[in-house]
Amino acid sequence: FKRRKFSRSWKRKFQNYTGEHKNGFQIAWLLQGAITSQVLPWVAFYSGYSFLIVLLAQRLELTSSFDVGGGIAHIVLSINLLLSFLLIFRTNAAHDRYWEGRKLWGSLVNTTRNLARGISITIDRESSPIDSPIKEENMKLIDAFCVAMKIHLRQEEFVEEELMILMSNSRYRQLYKSGHPPLKIVFWLGEYLQEQYLLNRINLYQLNTLHKLLDDLVDILGGCERILKTPTPIVYSLFLKQLLVIYCLILPIELAVHFNFWTILIMALFSLILFGIEEIGSELENPFGRDPNDLPLDFICNTISGNIQELIKSNQARLTD
Amino acid sequence: FKRRKFSRSWKRKFQNYTGEHKNGFQIAWLLQGAITSQVLPWVAFYSGYSFLIVLLAQRLELTSSFDVGGGIAHIVLSINLLLSFLLIFRTNAAHDRYWEGRKLWGSLVNTTRNLARGISITIDRESSPIDSPIKEENMKLIDAFCVAMKIHLRQEEFVEEELMILMSNSRYRQLYKSGHPPLKIVFWLGEYLQEQYLLNRINLYQLNTLHKLLDDLVDILGGCERILKTPTPIVYSLFLKQLLVIYCLILPIELAVHFNFWTILIMALFSLILFGIEEIGSELENPFGRDPNDLPLDFICNTISGNIQELIKSNQARLTD
Amino acid sequence: FKRRKFSRSWKRKFQNYTGEHKNGFQIAWLLQGAITSQVLPWVAFYSGYSFLIVLLAQRLELTSSFDVGGGIAHIVLSINLLLSFLLIFRTNAAHDRYWEGRKLWGSLVNTTRNLARGISITIDRESSPIDSPIKEENMKLIDAFCVAMKIHLRQEEFVEEELMILMSNSRYRQLYKSGHPPLKIVFWLGEYLQEQYLLNRINLYQLNTLHKLLDDLVDILGGCERILKTPTPIVYSLFLKQLLVIYCLILPIELAVHFNFWTILIMALFSLILFGIEEIGSELENPFGRDPNDLPLDFICNTISGNIQELIKSNQARLTD
Amino acid sequence: FKRRKFSRSWKRKFQNYTGEHKNGFQIAWLLQGAITSQVLPWVAFYSGYSFLIVLLAQRLELTSSFDVGGGIAHIVLSINLLLSFLLIFRTNAAHDRYWEGRKLWGSLVNTTRNLARGISITIDRESSPIDSPIKEENMKLIDAFCVAMKIHLRQEEFVEEELMILMSNSRYRQLYKSGHPPLKIVFWLGEYLQEQYLLNRINLYQLNTLHKLLDDLVDILGGCERILKTPTPIVYSLFLKQLLVIYCLILPIELAVHFNFWTILIMALFSLILFGIEEIGSELENPFGRDPNDLPLDFICNTISGNIQELIKSNQARLTD
Amino acid sequence: FKRRKFSRSWKRKFQNYTGEHKNGFQIAWLLQGAITSQVLPWVAFYSGYSFLIVLLAQRLELTSSFDVGGGIAHIVLSINLLLSFLLIFRTNAAHDRYWEGRKLWGSLVNTTRNLARGISITIDRESSPIDSPIKEENMKLIDAFCVAMKIHLRQEEFVEEELMILMSNSRYRQLYKSGHPPLKIVFWLGEYLQEQYLLNRINLYQLNTLHKLLDDLVDILGGCERILKTPTPIVYSLFLKQLLVIYCLILPIELAVHFNFWTILIMALFSLILFGIEEIGSELENPFGRDPNDLPLDFICNTISGNIQELIKSNQARLTD
Repeated sequence: FKRRKFSRSWKRKFQNYTGEHKNGFQIAWLLQGAITSQVLPWVAFYSGYSFLIVLLAQRLELTSSFDVGGGIAHIVLSINLLLSFLLIFRTNAAHDRYWEGRKLWGSLVNTTRNLARGISITIDRESSPIDSPIKEENMKLIDAFCVAMKIHLRQEEFVEEELMILMSNSRYRQLYKSGHPPLKIVFWLGEYLQEQYLLNRINLYQLNTLHKLLDDLVDILGGCERILKTPTPIVYSLFLKQLLVIYCLILPIELAVHFNFWTILIMALFSLILFGIEEIGSELENPFGRDPNDLPLDFICNTISGNIQELIKSNQARLTD
Repeated sequence: FKRRKFSRSWKRKFQNYTGEHKNGFQIAWLLQGAITSQVLPWVAFYSGYSFLIVLLAQRLELTSSFDVGGGIAHIVLSINLLLSFLLIFRTNAAHDRYWEGRKLWGSLVNTTRNLARGISITIDRESSPIDSPIKEENMKLIDAFCVAMKIHLRQEEFVEEELMILMSNSRYRQLYKSGHPPLKIVFWLGEYLQEQYLLNRINLYQLNTLHKLLDDLVDILGGCERILKTPTPIVYSLFLKQLLVIYCLILPIELAVHFNFWTILIMALFSLILFGIEEIGSELENPFGRDPNDLPLDFICNTISGNIQELIKSNQARLTD
Repeated sequence: FKRRKFSRSWKRKFQNYTGEHKNGFQIAWLLQGAITSQVLPWVAFYSGYSFLIVLLAQRLELTSSFDVGGGIAHIVLSINLLLSFLLIFRTNAAHDRYWEGRKLWGSLVNTTRNLARGISITIDRESSPIDSPIKEENMKLIDAFCVAMKIHLRQEEFVEEELMILMSNSRYRQLYKSGHPPLKIVFWLGEYLQEQYLLNRINLYQLNTLHKLLDDLVDILGGCERILKTPTPIVYSLFLKQLLVIYCLILPIELAVHFNFWTILIMALFSLILFGIEEIGSELENPFGRDPNDLPLDFICNTISGNIQELIKSNQARLTD
Repeated sequence: FKRRKFSRSWKRKFQNYTGEHKNGFQIAWLLQGAITSQVLPWVAFYSGYSFLIVLLAQRLELTSSFDVGGGIAHIVLSINLLLSFLLIFRTNAAHDRYWEGRKLWGSLVNTTRNLARGISITIDRESSPIDSPIKEENMKLIDAFCVAMKIHLRQEEFVEEELMILMSNSRYRQLYKSGHPPLKIVFWLGEYLQEQYLLNRINLYQLNTLHKLLDDLVDILGGCERILKTPTPIVYSLFLKQLLVIYCLILPIELAVHFNFWTILIMALFSLILFGIEEIGSELENPFGRDPNDLPLDFICNTISGNIQELIKSNQARLTD
Repeated sequence: FKRRKFSRSWKRKFQNYTGEHKNGFQIAWLLQGAITSQVLPWVAFYSGYSFLIVLLAQRLELTSSFDVGGGIAHIVLSINLLLSFLLIFRTNAAHDRYWEGRKLWGSLVNTTRNLARGISITIDRESSPIDSPIKEENMKLIDAFCVAMKIHLRQEEFVEEELMILMSNSRYRQLYKSGHPPLKIVFWLGEYLQEQYLLNRINLYQLNTLHKLLDDLVDILGGCERILKTPTPIVYSLFLKQLLVIYCLILPIELAVHFNFWTILIMALFSLILFGIEEIGSELENPFGRDPNDLPLDFICNTISGNIQELIKSNQARLTD
C-alpha cells in the first residue's frame, strides 16, 4: 500500500470540499470570479474618478493649495482604522454564519445516519417481508427531506426529477401543494413511526428515541431558516458600504499629489481589495445559494443519499438471506 | 421550472428578513433614518462648534500659537485607537445580544412546531370528537403564548384584537389581570396536559416529553427577559459616549489649522459616523422593540401562527375522514 | 390602548435593569461615581507629576535637550498599542464573566419557576389539606435558597429578617450554624422530595425530574462560586496596572514640550480614561457585590420571590375551591 | 518521593503532546522545518525581486523620482493594517478548527473508555465463559473503529497490520470492500448489542445507554469529517495570499530608498514571517494529516488501545477467579 | 450584623482564589516573581546588547550613516503591529485554556457534591448499620479521585499521606501499581454501585443517574488531560518567541540614535514587558502545575474534601438517631 501525502494544496482542499477536480487557476477563477464580477463596477467607477481627480489636480495646479499633507492623511488614517475594524467585524459575523450553516448540515448528515440506522435495525426484526417496501419508502423519505430542505433554503421552485424518484406520485403531488414541504415530510415520518408503535413493532423507548431524531431534523431545519432569514443587521452592512464609498472618494485626493497617474492603478487595486472583502462577507453570510462560494449542498445531499442507499441494500440482502 | 437566482441584494435580504418588498433606497431610508434622527442633534452641535473653532482660529490668528502639530495629533491618535477598540467592543456586545435574541425566537419557532405537532399527533388517536374543540383551543394557546411574549418583551399594553381571537373571553380577562401573562398561558397548557394524563389520553412518557417542551418555552421566555432587562454594562456605554464627545471636541482644533471652513463638513461627517455606530449598538442591544432595526417579531409570530393554523386544519380534515 | 414607545434612553434601560426610576444625570453620577472615586487618587497623582515635569522642562530649559521627538513618540506609541490590546483583553474577560454571572442568575429564575411549578402541580393532586402548609414551607425554601445564595456570594453575614420569614425558627438556627447554607437548603428540599416519594405522592419519574432541577440549582450555585473565587489571572491585572503606571509616567515627558501647562489637564483626562477603563474591568469581573455597577441581585431575588408568592396564592385558592 | 518540577519548557510540552523525547532544537527543526520548506520558494523569489528593485533604484537614480515618501509609506501602512487583521482572522479560524479537532479526539478517548467499561461491566455478570471471546472481539472493535477513523481522516489506503490484528479475517475483508469502514464497524457493534439484548443479557436501559455511546461515536466521526471536508472559505485564503504577494511586491520599493542592499535581507525576513504565518494557518486548518504540526493521532490511538487492552486483561483475570 | 464591603482589592481577590492571606506586595512578589525569574536572562541579554549597540553607534559615529529614520521606524512599526496581534492571540488562547481548566474543576466540585449527596440519600434508607462503613469508604473514594486526578495532572509521584488516609492499605497498593489511578478509582465506584443494585438497595433509575455522574467524572478527567497534553500549537509559540527576539534585536538600532545610554534602560523595560507577556501565556496554558499562577488545585481539593466530610458526619448523625 502507499501512503498518500496529505497535501495542503487548494486543489486537494477544493476536492474534499465539493468533490470536483480542478487545478489552482480554475479554482481561483471560479471562486474569485463570482466576487470580482460584483466588484468590477466599483473598480471602474473609482478608476475613472481618480483619473478626474488627478486631471483636476494637474490642470488647476491644486497641488500647492491641497498641500494640507498631515491633515488629509490623518482623516484617511482615522477612517482607515475604523473601516478595518468594521470589515473584520463583518468578516467574522459572515464566517460565523457560514460555519454555523456548515455545522447544521454536518449534524444533518449524522442525524440522518442515526435515523436511517435506527429504522433499519430497530424495526427490522419484527417486520414481515410485506412491510419491507414500506420501510424502504420511509427511509427514502429521509433522503427526500434533505433534498426538500435544500430546495427550500435556496428558495427555488421544486425540481421534479430529484424528488419524484424518492416517493410515490400521490405524495409528490401533496408535497407540491404543501406550504412547507420539509415539515410535511417530517410529519409523514412521524406518522409512520406512530403506526409502527401501534402495530407493536417498536417499543415506547425506541419510538421516543426515533421521535427525538425527528425533532433534531426540525431543529436543524429551523437553524438553517434562521440563518437564511436573518442577515447580519442590514444597517451595519449599509453603514460599512457607505463608509467604504466615502473612504475611496477621499483617498485619491491624498494620493493624487504623490503619485500622479499611478493613482488610477492604486485606486483600482484598493477598491478591488476593499469592496472585495465586503462582497465576500455579503456572499458568505447566506451560504445556502448556488454561488461557487456557497456550501456544496448538492455534494452533501449526495453523501446522505449514498449512505441511505447502502443501508437499504444491506437491508434487502439480509431479508433475502 | 425556473431556478430563481439567489440574489445577494439588500432588497432580497430585507424581504427574507421582514417579509416586506422594498427597494434599496427605501430600505436605507427606513433603517438608517431611525439611526440618523437620533444622531442629528450631535451632528448639528459639532458643525456649529467647528464653525466657532475655525472662526476663533482665524480671528485671533491662533494658527501659529496652536501649531503644536505632532502633539495634538498624537493625543487624537491615542484616543482614536482606544475609541475604535471600545466601539468595536460595543458593536460586538450589541450584535451578540441581537443574535442571541434571534436564536431564542428561532428556538421558539422550533419548539412551538414540536409542541403543536406533539399535541396534535399524540392526543389525536384517543380523543373523542367532543374533545376536539378543547384541543384546538389549547393549540391556539401556543400561538397566544408567542403573542403575549411579544407584547411582554415590548413592554406594551395588551392589544385586544390579537389575543382575544386566540382564547375565550373569560381567559382573556384572567390574562388581562395577570401579573405575567406568558407564564399564565404556560400554566394553562401545563394543566391541560396534566388533565389529559389523568384521563389516560397520554402516557407518562408523552406527558414528560410535552412538559419538557413547556419548560423550553419558559427558558426561551427567561432568556429574552434577560436580554431585555440587562443591557451591556451601562457604565461602559456612558464611558464610550463621553469619550466620543471629548474626542469630537478636540478633533476640530487639529483640523481647523489644515482645512479652514472645510472642517465643518468633515466634522459633520465624522460625528455622523462615530455617533452613528454608537447609536446602532445602543439600538441593537435590545432587539425586541418596534424600531425598524429591531427583530421582526410580528413577522415571526405570523409564521408561528401560520404553522399552527395548518396543523389545526389538517387535524380537522383527519377527524372528518 | 396606547403603544409605549420603546425608548433607548439610559433612563429606561436603568429602570429595566434595577427597577429604579432615575434620570440620566443621577445614573451617570451613581454608576461612574463609584468608578471615579477609585480612580481619583491616580488622577491627582498624575496631575501633580505632570506639573513637576512641565516645571522641570521650563526651568532647566530641557525642551531642547529633550527634543528627541520621534524617539519618545515611538516608545509611547508602541506601549500605547500593547496597552490598548491588553485593556480590551481585560474588558472582554471582565464582560464575559459579568454576562456569565447574569446568565446563571437568569437560569436561576427559570429553574426556580420550573421547580416551584413542578412541586405545585405534581404533588398537588394527591395531597391532603394537612400537607398543604408543608408544601408551602418547601416552596418558600426555594425562595430562601436564592436569598442564601445571594448572601453567600456577597460573603456577608446572614441577614435575619430576609431569611427568617421564609422558614421555621429551628431551621433558621440550623442554617446559621451550617458551613454552607445554600447547600443545606438544597439538602432539605431533596429530603422533602424523597419523603413525598416514599409516601407515594409522586412517582419515580417526577421525583427524577424534580431532583434534576435541584441538581441544576447546585450547578448554578457552583458556577457563581467559580466566578467569585477565580478572578481573571491576577498576574495579568497586575501587569496591566503596572504598564498603565509606566505609560502615564512617560507620556508627560512627550507632552510637556508641546503643551506647557495644558499638559496637566491632558494628563488628568488621560489617567481618568485609562485607569477608569481598568477599574471598570476590575469591578465587573466580580459582579455579585453591592456596588452600583454590580448585578441587581436584590431585584432578581424580588422577582423570584414574587413568582413563588403568586404560585402559593393560586395554590391556596385551588384548595379552598 | 520527589515532586517533579512542572517545567514549562518546550521539551516537556512536546513530550506530553506526542510522547516523544526531543530537545528544543530538534523540535524547532521538526515543526518549523515543515513550514519553512513550503515558504522557502517565496523567500527566494522576494530576495531576488528586492535585488532587482535595489539595482534598478541605483542604476536609474530612481531615488529622487521615487521620493514620494509619505505616499508609498501610507499605502504600505494601509495594506499592512488590513493584512494583519486578515492574518489574525486566518490564524484564529485555523486554530479554532485545530482545537475543535482535538476536542473531538478527546471526546473519542472518553467515549471509548465509557463504552468499553460499559460492555465490560454490564454484560459481564450474565455472560458464560463461552461468550468471553466474542466480548473481547467486540471490545477490540472499538479500538479498530479509532484506527479506521484515523485512516479515513488521513484519506490513506488501509494499513493491513494495524487493523488485521483487531478482527477476524472475514471481517477485515468485508471492511476492505466497504465504502465507509468506520461506519461499518459501528454497525457491527450495534448488531452485537442488539443480539445481547435479544439474548436477555442486558436490559433495555443498558442497551439504550450503550447505543447512545455508539451515536456519540458517529457524531465524533461526523464532526471530524466536517473539519476535513470544509476548509476556511477558500476565497478568503486566496484573497489573503494575493494580498500578501502584492504587499511584498510594493514593500521593497519603499525600503530600497532607505536600506540599499540591506533591503534583500529585510525582505527575506519579512516574506519568511508573513508567508510563514499564512502557511501555519493553512497547515493547522486540517489537523488530521501526518505533518509534524498535525494532531498526534497515532499517539492518541495508542492511548485508547492501551486502555482497552487493560480492560480486557482485568476482564480475563476476573473470569479466571 | 455588619455588611462586609465587597472590596475589589487584590488582597481580597487573592484570598478568594487561594484561601491565603497576603498583602498586595506579597502577591505581586509571588505571582510576578515566578514570571520575572524566567524572563530575567532575556532582560540581561538585551541590556548588554543595547549597551554594545550604543557604544558602536558612538564610537563609529554611526549616527549619520544610520540616519535612515523613517525606514527603520517603519520596519519596527510593521513588526510591532504583527507582534501585538500574535501576543494577544497567544494571551487569548492561554486564557481560554486556563478558564476551561477552571470550569472543569468547577464541574468537578459540583459533580462530586451531587454524587456524594446521591450516594448518601439514595442508598441511605435501605442500608443496614453494617454497611455504613462501606458507604463511608466509597464516599471517601470520591475525595480520593480528586486527589489522584490532581497528582495525575501534575505528573508527580504519588504522595502517600494524602491518599492513604482515604482508602484501605490493599487498595492503596493496587492504586500504586495501576497505570491510571483516577480511572481505577472510578472503576471501583462503578463496581460498588453495581453491587448495591444487585443487592436491590437502589433501583435501576438511581443506578443510571449515579452511573451518569461517574461518566461525568471521566469526562472531566479527559478534558483536563486534553488541556495538559495539547499545548497551543507549539509552532506558533516558537514563531512568536523568534519574532520577539528579532524585534528586540532591531529595536535598539532605532533607539540608540535618539536616546544614547538611556536605550539600555528602555530596552530592559521593553524586553521585560514583551517577554513577560509571552511567559505568562506559556505559564497559563497549562494551569495544573504548582507555580503560583496555576490554578489552586490544593485549595479546591480541600473544599471538596470538606463537603464530603460534612456529608459523612451528617450521615453518621442520622444513623445514631
